[in-house]
Amino acid sequence: MKKLAVVILAAGQGTRMASDLHKVLHPLAGRPMLMHLLDTVAQLGAERTVLVVGKGREQLEAAVAGRDLAVAVQAEQKGTGHAVAQAAEALAGFEGNVLVLYGDTPCVEVATLRAMAERLEADDRPGVVVLASSPADPAAYGRVILGEGDRIARMVEFKDASEAERAVRLCNSGMLAAGAADLFGWLAQVGNDNAAGEYYLPDIVMVAGAEGRHAVALECAPWQTAGINSRAELSVVERDWQQRRRARAMAEGATLLDPATVWFSFDTKLGRDVVIEPSVFFGPGVAIADRATIHAFSHLEGAIVGEGAAIGPYARLRPGAVLGQDSKVGNFVEIKKATLGAGAKANHLSYIGDAEVGAKANIGAGTITCNYDGFFKYRTRIGEGAFIGSNSALVAPVSIGAGAIVGAGSVVTRDVEAESLGVTRADQKQLSGWATRFRERQRAKKASAGGA
Amino acid sequence: MKKLAVVILAAGQGTRMASDLHKVLHPLAGRPMLMHLLDTVAQLGAERTVLVVGKGREQLEAAVAGRDLAVAVQAEQKGTGHAVAQAAEALAGFEGNVLVLYGDTPCVEVATLRAMAERLEADDRPGVVVLASSPADPAAYGRVILGEGDRIARMVEFKDASEAERAVRLCNSGMLAAGAADLFGWLAQVGNDNAAGEYYLPDIVMVAGAEGRHAVALECAPWQTAGINSRAELSVVERDWQQRRRARAMAEGATLLDPATVWFSFDTKLGRDVVIEPSVFFGPGVAIADRATIHAFSHLEGAIVGEGAAIGPYARLRPGAVLGQDSKVGNFVEIKKATLGAGAKANHLSYIGDAEVGAKANIGAGTITCNYDGFFKYRTRIGEGAFIGSNSALVAPVSIGAGAIVGAGSVVTRDVEAESLGVTRADQKQLSGWATRFRERQRAKKASAGGA
Amino acid sequence: MKKLAVVILAAGQGTRMASDLHKVLHPLAGRPMLMHLLDTVAQLGAERTVLVVGKGREQLEAAVAGRDLAVAVQAEQKGTGHAVAQAAEALAGFEGNVLVLYGDTPCVEVATLRAMAERLEADDRPGVVVLASSPADPAAYGRVILGEGDRIARMVEFKDASEAERAVRLCNSGMLAAGAADLFGWLAQVGNDNAAGEYYLPDIVMVAGAEGRHAVALECAPWQTAGINSRAELSVVERDWQQRRRARAMAEGATLLDPATVWFSFDTKLGRDVVIEPSVFFGPGVAIADRATIHAFSHLEGAIVGEGAAIGPYARLRPGAVLGQDSKVGNFVEIKKATLGAGAKANHLSYIGDAEVGAKANIGAGTITCNYDGFFKYRTRIGEGAFIGSNSALVAPVSIGAGAIVGAGSVVTRDVEAESLGVTRADQKQLSGWATRFRERQRAKKASAGGA
Repeated sequence: MKKLAVVILAAGQGTRMASDLHKVLHPLAGRPMLMHLLDTVAQLGAERTVLVVGKGREQLEAAVAGRDLAVAVQAEQKGTGHAVAQAAEALAGFEGNVLVLYGDTPCVEVATLRAMAERLEADDRPGVVVLASSPADPAAYGRVILGEGDRIARMVEFKDASEAERAVRLCNSGMLAAGAADLFGWLAQVGNDNAAGEYYLPDIVMVAGAEGRHAVALECAPWQTAGINSRAELSVVERDWQQRRRARAMAEGATLLDPATVWFSFDTKLGRDVVIEPSVFFGPGVAIADRATIHAFSHLEGAIVGEGAAIGPYARLRPGAVLGQDSKVGNFVEIKKATLGAGAKANHLSYIGDAEVGAKANIGAGTITCNYDGFFKYRTRIGEGAFIGSNSALVAPVSIGAGAIVGAGSVVTRDVEAESLGVTRADQKQLSGWATRFRERQRAKKASAGGA
Repeated sequence: MKKLAVVILAAGQGTRMASDLHKVLHPLAGRPMLMHLLDTVAQLGAERTVLVVGKGREQLEAAVAGRDLAVAVQAEQKGTGHAVAQAAEALAGFEGNVLVLYGDTPCVEVATLRAMAERLEADDRPGVVVLASSPADPAAYGRVILGEGDRIARMVEFKDASEAERAVRLCNSGMLAAGAADLFGWLAQVGNDNAAGEYYLPDIVMVAGAEGRHAVALECAPWQTAGINSRAELSVVERDWQQRRRARAMAEGATLLDPATVWFSFDTKLGRDVVIEPSVFFGPGVAIADRATIHAFSHLEGAIVGEGAAIGPYARLRPGAVLGQDSKVGNFVEIKKATLGAGAKANHLSYIGDAEVGAKANIGAGTITCNYDGFFKYRTRIGEGAFIGSNSALVAPVSIGAGAIVGAGSVVTRDVEAESLGVTRADQKQLSGWATRFRERQRAKKASAGGA
Repeated sequence: MKKLAVVILAAGQGTRMASDLHKVLHPLAGRPMLMHLLDTVAQLGAERTVLVVGKGREQLEAAVAGRDLAVAVQAEQKGTGHAVAQAAEALAGFEGNVLVLYGDTPCVEVATLRAMAERLEADDRPGVVVLASSPADPAAYGRVILGEGDRIARMVEFKDASEAERAVRLCNSGMLAAGAADLFGWLAQVGNDNAAGEYYLPDIVMVAGAEGRHAVALECAPWQTAGINSRAELSVVERDWQQRRRARAMAEGATLLDPATVWFSFDTKLGRDVVIEPSVFFGPGVAIADRATIHAFSHLEGAIVGEGAAIGPYARLRPGAVLGQDSKVGNFVEIKKATLGAGAKANHLSYIGDAEVGAKANIGAGTITCNYDGFFKYRTRIGEGAFIGSNSALVAPVSIGAGAIVGAGSVVTRDVEAESLGVTRADQKQLSGWATRFRERQRAKKASAGGA
C-alpha cells in the first residue's frame, strides 16, 4: 500500500458548544474527542499527520504537545477546502495518499480508513474516495448520488437537492481520501463563488471528475460519521459509544444488571464473569479481573481490581488503588494510592490513602489514614493479618505490624509492633442521672425561648 | 388586550393515583403540579384566578393559602361544564376573557395562554378558542374536526367518532378561552342528556356556533396538553419535562455526560461550562456557577455552588449549603446550613452542619460538627486557613481560629485560638504479644463453640 | 382437570453466556432464572417435575437440592426431542398431561401454562398444544402457520420458510403440552435426518397430525416466551421485567420519580403512597410500608421499612435491618441485622450492625457499633430515647440504657446506665502559636526539597 498522510481539520469555532473549552477537546468516554481520532490515526501508521487549527489554537497546541504531528494554522475561516490547503506546506514532498478527517468526528474506525485507502489504490483512474453513510434520519446532510456501482454521479447540498435527491439516504461524511498531489492541485481549482464566500472541500469531486478521474463512495455505519457540534450531539455520540461498549462487555462475559446505567471509559478492561450492578461509573484507567463483583453506585478511576474481589456498593476507588484477589472494599469507602493485599477488607466508612495494607488485614469501620499535614503526604503501612479497630485514626507516617491489633477509637501516632495491641483510650466516666437533669434544663430553656 | 381571568379545575377525584395526596399536589420536577400552573398563570397577569375544588378540598386550600386566588367548591361531580359554572360567583362583575385550565395539566406555557387570548380578541365574531394538539398517539382523545382555516366544524368524542374522524390527529385539550359573559351564558344552555348525566364544557362550542359565533382551534405542542391521571402518566410527563430541561442545560453550555440520569428541579440554575457526571439529583433551590463540576452520585438541594467548585462524587448538599469559589466537597460528605469560603475543602466522610468555614480551610476526613444536643442546634466557626485533623469531632458552639490546627482524632469542646494547635489525645499504649494471646483465646472459644 | 407433569429442559451449554456459571442459574430480578420457572411450576400444582440436565449438571443439582423434582440426565446433546425423551423414566406410570418448558425461558406465567393444559383437554382429538407468540421482530424464529381456527397447518424453520411464511409473525416458543403417553410415543417416531443429526421436539406436531390428532397453537404475550442465550438477551429480559414491575408499582400507588432508574427484585413489596427517588436498588427480601420515602442512591436488601420511615439518600440497608414507624436512616449510613424502634434516627455516616435501637433514640453522626473482633459478632443495645453523641464507637457487647447520653467522640466499652451520661474524653490542650511554627518548618522543608 502507498504511504499515507492524514489531515485533521479542527479550525472550526464550535460556537454551538457554548464553551471556553475547544470543541474537539470536549471528552468522549473519558478523554478528549480529538485523542480518540489521534489514536485511530496512530493505528493506521500514517507517515505524517497534520492538524489544522484556527480559533483556540493555543488550547489545541497544548493538548497535542509531544505528539508526532504537524500543526497548520488556518488564520481565517474560509471553508473546508481552504482549511485542507493550509496543510500543503506540512505535506510538502509527500507523494502518497491523504486522508482528510475531522476533529469533531471522532468515531471513525481504523478499518474504515484502511478501506478508503485501499479503494483509492484499487481504482484504475483513482481520484477521490468519499466516506458516506446512511443515517436513520439523513436530515439536512448533503446527499451522495451514485451512478454505476460505487461511482459518485453527483454530491448535492440538502438545500439544493430535488425531492428525488432528498429521498436518497446516502450522505456525505466530509471525510475523503485522495492522492496528495491531486488533492492540493484540485483544491487550487476550487472557487468560492457561493453565498458564504467559502472554499468547499467536496467541490474537488467535481474537479476530479472533469479530469476524467473517478470519485467513488465508500459506505460505513452511520455512527462512524457522526459529527459533534453541540453538547446535545456530544451526548448522543457518547450514548451510542456507551451502548456499543456495553454490548461488547456482555459479549465478552460480563453481566450488567442494568446496562443503561453503567458508564465506561475508553480504556476500561473487564474480565470474565465480572458482575456489575446498576449505576457504576468507570473513569479512565480501570481494569477489573475475572469474577470480581462491582456493586451499585461505585465510582472507579485509575484502579486495578483483582480476581474475585467485591467492590461497593458506594465504593470509590481513586487512581493508584490496587486491590488484591478476593479483597473487599465496602460501602462509603475511599481508596487512593493504596494497595490492598489478597483477602484484605475495608468494609465500611473508611478513607485509605497512601497506604499498603497486607493480605487478610481487616480495616474496621470508620478507619481513617491521616495522610496529609497540609504540606506533605505520608504513607501508612498495615501488616498482613492486622486488625484495625473501628473509628481509628492512623496518623502517617506510621506502621502497624503484621498480626497487630489496634483498639477501637484509637489515634495511632507511633508504630505498633507485630502481634501487639496498640490503643489510645481515655477512661470511661459515668454521671448518673446527668441526662435527666440535662433534659430538664434544656426543656426549660426551650420553653422560655418559646415564651419570649 | 382585554383583562383576563383564569378558572382552574381541580375537583376531580384522581382515583387512579391510588393516593391519599390530592392528584394536583403530586410533585412534578420538585413541586406540586398545581404550582407549576399557578406560576404560569402568575406570569400571565390575570386579574382573577379561581380554583374549583371538590374532593380533598382541605388539602388544596392549605396548599394555596396566601395566594391571590379565589376557591370555588363543586360539591357534586356533575361534569366539567358544571365545574366551571361554580366559578361564576367568584367572577361576578368580571367583564374580560376567561381561560379554563386544569390542575392536572400543568405544562401549558404562558405564551400559549397569551396566544389563546389574542386569538379570541382578533376574531370578528369571537366565541371560543379551544386549545388543541396532535399527539403521536391520539388514542381515545376527543377529536377536533376543522372547517375553514382554524374554524372548528365539530368536536367529537372518540367513541362517537367515525373512522374518518378517528384518523384526524388533532385532539381537544379541554383548555379553552371565551368571554366571561358568553362562557357562563352558554354553560347555562348546556344539558346533561348523556349516559353519565354530566354537563360537558366542550358543549359550549356547539352553543356558541348556534349563536353564529366562531369556535376556533389553536394548536400547541402535545406536551403542553398532557394530562395526568395516574402515577404512570405522571412519570411520563416528568420524563418529558426532564428531557426538555436537559436539552436546555446543554444548549446553554453545561456538559451532561449521561443526560438521562441527571434529574433537575423546576428552579435549578446552571452556569456555563458546568460539567455534570452521571446520576446527579438536583432537588429544589440549587444554583451552580460557571465551571463547577458535579461528580457522579451527588444529591443537591437548596444549595449554592460557586465558580469552579468541585462537588462529589457522593456529595450531599442540603439546604443552606453555600460553597465558595474553587471550594471542594468530596465523597461521603454532607453539608447543611453551612458556608465554605473560597478554596475551602471537605474532601472525605464528613458532616458539616450549622457552620462557617473560612477560605482555604481544610477539613480532614471524618470530621463531624456536633451541632445538636437533642434540643438546640449550635454553630461551628472555622477560621480562614484552619486545618482540622481527620476524625475530629467539633462540639458546637465552638470556634477554631484562623490558621489554627486541630490534631487528628480530637474532640474539641473549647475554642481553639488562631494559629494554635488544639488537640485532645490519650497516651498510646502497646501491649506486646497481646494480639497473639487474644487470637489463641478466641480460636479456642470458637473451637469449643463449634464442638458443643 | 387431568394431572400435570412438567419437563424443564436445561441441558444446553449456554456457550454464548461466556460464563462458568450455568446459563439457567444466571439471575433475573435477583434470583436464578430457573427459580422463576420453578416457582411458576409450583403454583401450577404439577404432580411431577423433571429437570433435564447435561453440561454443568453438578451446578444445577446443587441449586435445586431439596426441591421436589426429579433430575434426568441428557448425556449427549442430541436435540430437544432427545432431551425430553430422557424424562421418560422419571415419568414412568404418569398418565396425565405433560408441559415441556425451558430453563432459559423463565417468564412464562402460570395462567398461560394452565391455559395450555385446558386447551389440550378441551380438544376432541387432543394432540399437541404449542405455545406461540408474535414478537415485534420475529427475526429468525420458526414460524407457526395456522390452518382453521387455532389449528396448526405447519411449523417451519425460518431458514426453510418461504417469503409468505416469513411474513407470518406467529412464532413457535418451543413450549408445548401433550399427553404423557402420546408425547413419549411420538418422540420415539421422530428421526434425526437433518444437518445437525438432532432429534427435534417440534417434529411431534407432524407425527401427531399423521395420526389424525390435532396440533393447536395458543398465543401469549411475547415477553412470556423470550429465551435467554446471551448476557445481552438476559439484560433485555431483565429490562422488560423491570418495566412491568415498575408499572405495577405505580398502579398500586407508589411514586417513582424516575422509574427507569429504580431496580426491583422478584419479591420486593411496596405499600401505598411510598415515594421512591431516582437510582434506588432493591435487592431480594425488601418490604416497604405505606408512606415511607426512599431517597435517591439507596441500596436495600433483606430489609423491612416501617410506615412513614425516611431512608437515604445513600442509605444502605442490609439483611436483617428492621426499621420502625417514622424512623429515619440518612446519608452514608449502613444498617445490618439491626432493629430501629419507632421514631429512631441514624441520620449521618454511621454503621449500625447487630444492634437494637430503642424508639426515639438518636444516633449521632459518625457513630459506629464495633460488633466484630475478628472471631465473633457481638450485640449493641441502645435504649429508648437514648442520645449517642457524634463520632462515638460503641464496643459491643455493650448496652446504653434508656434515656442515657453518650458524649461526642466517646469509645464506650462498658454499659451506660439509663438516664446517665457516659463519656470518654482526654483533656483538650492548646499550644499557642504552634501552627505558625509548624507551617514555617514545613514550608522550609518543602522549599529545600524543591531546591534539591
